[in-house]
Amino acid sequence: MASAESVAAVVSAGGAHVPELMDRVEARLRAVATSHGPVLGEQAEATIAAGGKRLRPLLVLVAAGPQPADDEALVRAGAAVELVHAASLVHDDVLDGAALRRGRPTVVAAAGRDMAIATGDLLFSRAFAELAGTGRADAVRVLSDAASALAAGELLQRADAWSADVSRERYLERCDLKTGRLFQAACALGALLGGGSVEALAAFGRRIGLAFQLLDDVLDVSGPAERTGKHRGTDLLDGTVTLPLILAREADPELAALDVRTVTTPAAAEAVCDKIAATGALERSREEALAMVADAKRQLPALPEAQQAALELVADGVVDRYS
Amino acid sequence: MASAESVAAVVSAGGAHVPELMDRVEARLRAVATSHGPVLGEQAEATIAAGGKRLRPLLVLVAAGPQPADDEALVRAGAAVELVHAASLVHDDVLDGAALRRGRPTVVAAAGRDMAIATGDLLFSRAFAELAGTGRADAVRVLSDAASALAAGELLQRADAWSADVSRERYLERCDLKTGRLFQAACALGALLGGGSVEALAAFGRRIGLAFQLLDDVLDVSGPAERTGKHRGTDLLDGTVTLPLILAREADPELAALDVRTVTTPAAAEAVCDKIAATGALERSREEALAMVADAKRQLPALPEAQQAALELVADGVVDRYS
Repeated sequence: MASAESVAAVVSAGGAHVPELMDRVEARLRAVATSHGPVLGEQAEATIAAGGKRLRPLLVLVAAGPQPADDEALVRAGAAVELVHAASLVHDDVLDGAALRRGRPTVVAAAGRDMAIATGDLLFSRAFAELAGTGRADAVRVLSDAASALAAGELLQRADAWSADVSRERYLERCDLKTGRLFQAACALGALLGGGSVEALAAFGRRIGLAFQLLDDVLDVSGPAERTGKHRGTDLLDGTVTLPLILAREADPELAALDVRTVTTPAAAEAVCDKIAATGALERSREEALAMVADAKRQLPALPEAQQAALELVADGVVDRYS
Repeated sequence: MASAESVAAVVSAGGAHVPELMDRVEARLRAVATSHGPVLGEQAEATIAAGGKRLRPLLVLVAAGPQPADDEALVRAGAAVELVHAASLVHDDVLDGAALRRGRPTVVAAAGRDMAIATGDLLFSRAFAELAGTGRADAVRVLSDAASALAAGELLQRADAWSADVSRERYLERCDLKTGRLFQAACALGALLGGGSVEALAAFGRRIGLAFQLLDDVLDVSGPAERTGKHRGTDLLDGTVTLPLILAREADPELAALDVRTVTTPAAAEAVCDKIAATGALERSREEALAMVADAKRQLPALPEAQQAALELVADGVVDRYS
């Protein structure tokens, strides 16, 4: 997650309207969480309140340019993108059996698997209802394509779990589906509703989303746990093969021969993380992600100064987690 | 499920365009299932191919009237409604740990919980993508509201599971959320895209959807298993309290004192079903559902003859399962 400071910097660089609209996105998210009775209220509100840095809504607002015409549509789009993200987290936590997220109990831990599946479905549905309220079917199409990609990415991850031969290409495809496409949609929605260049901004979002996922996967191996809020190597314990392991296998025959299924305890996972780190695979993965971010910034079209600065700050925020 | 004959009757009563559009809905559903790679293909195609009678798409087409203007939009809406239904079945089967649906292994049984959650999410997303393709944000709003209701109904069902004091009103609210609202949306979408009276047709759909759920719950108690494809009393084993038990408790003190948690085997569930049946609660529940269907038919507005006949046949199809 980008640091709170970097998000604040984006918010102020993006123009005076950005903080106001971010507040309205927040209010809208809370309204959605509290408008479906006590059962949803309890679980969804906890999920939404747990927050995170709202990078995706921020991208919607910043991609819309310095003087967006239709505030209300942007606020809805920002809330919708965050709701899809929140829904996917709730379902991911069911898949992973995760107990904590952002230091709070997950819905699945607090209320059980059944409630978590239904809560995710509800957040998902509300995302589309929010966005449909803009009257823009083209916007709904953008978000539903991203949501489909997200689910397809999960399917791919499950299909490849524990597999010994996940290629770099296949890994990048999964990251693109799981993360790149929703960042892309956030930027596309902002541009679409703000009247900017959808294609160029969408490409920017997709690149930094991909880098975000790569860096997330590096963090899972590098830790430290105090920073990530989880043990190192949770991906390994889930059978999820990520770039650091893929690269490390090329350098270390012992890792190349490792059957991920045999890694079943946190201590064993940490030991594998140390071996991965020893090959230099973390630095190489990080460099790859940083190159993607640099590329994303370089390929931005000519934009108003404030917008350009804000987008670059978001891109830096993705990297920031490693400074 | 309505009998194949009654559906065929609706299809022919509705006008020459109905069978052609139903074929196109079917083709579209298969295209969605097969267009997301082998992983989704396998699971989603099985889910969609397993079929059922496509009552919801049929309602979309028939509610659109005898000479619908925009065929393509109706086909998309029909597919979208069925995709939401299919997604909810896939997730329901995870919640219930169901092994079979319509005589085939469920996604959760064939591919595991993780794949089932992701498959449901993908079908769900594709539903909104299909509908957004009509360019009608108002249509997306109708479907997302129904999808939200569906998830809220699941939450309510889980919140009330094993509860001793589920009231008749609370039960009917749950049925409305779980089933009535998607039938309502099917009719509303047809009317919206076909230019008919949205309100009157939506009310019709909601009533027969509610009756459909009631009768489904009666079937779970009455069996026979050869007809339903499952043991009697599966709802009891899930802790789901339905109208037959609510009514039977008023008549039988032993049932009133029953803690549903103590019903843990199929044999025990069947014994409770026999006790429920002995109170006459099944007949009373059935009568209530039939009265709803009669009411739905009676309150239909003046419509072209073919459309009226087709809608009444759908309503009869809901009841038909008991003839």
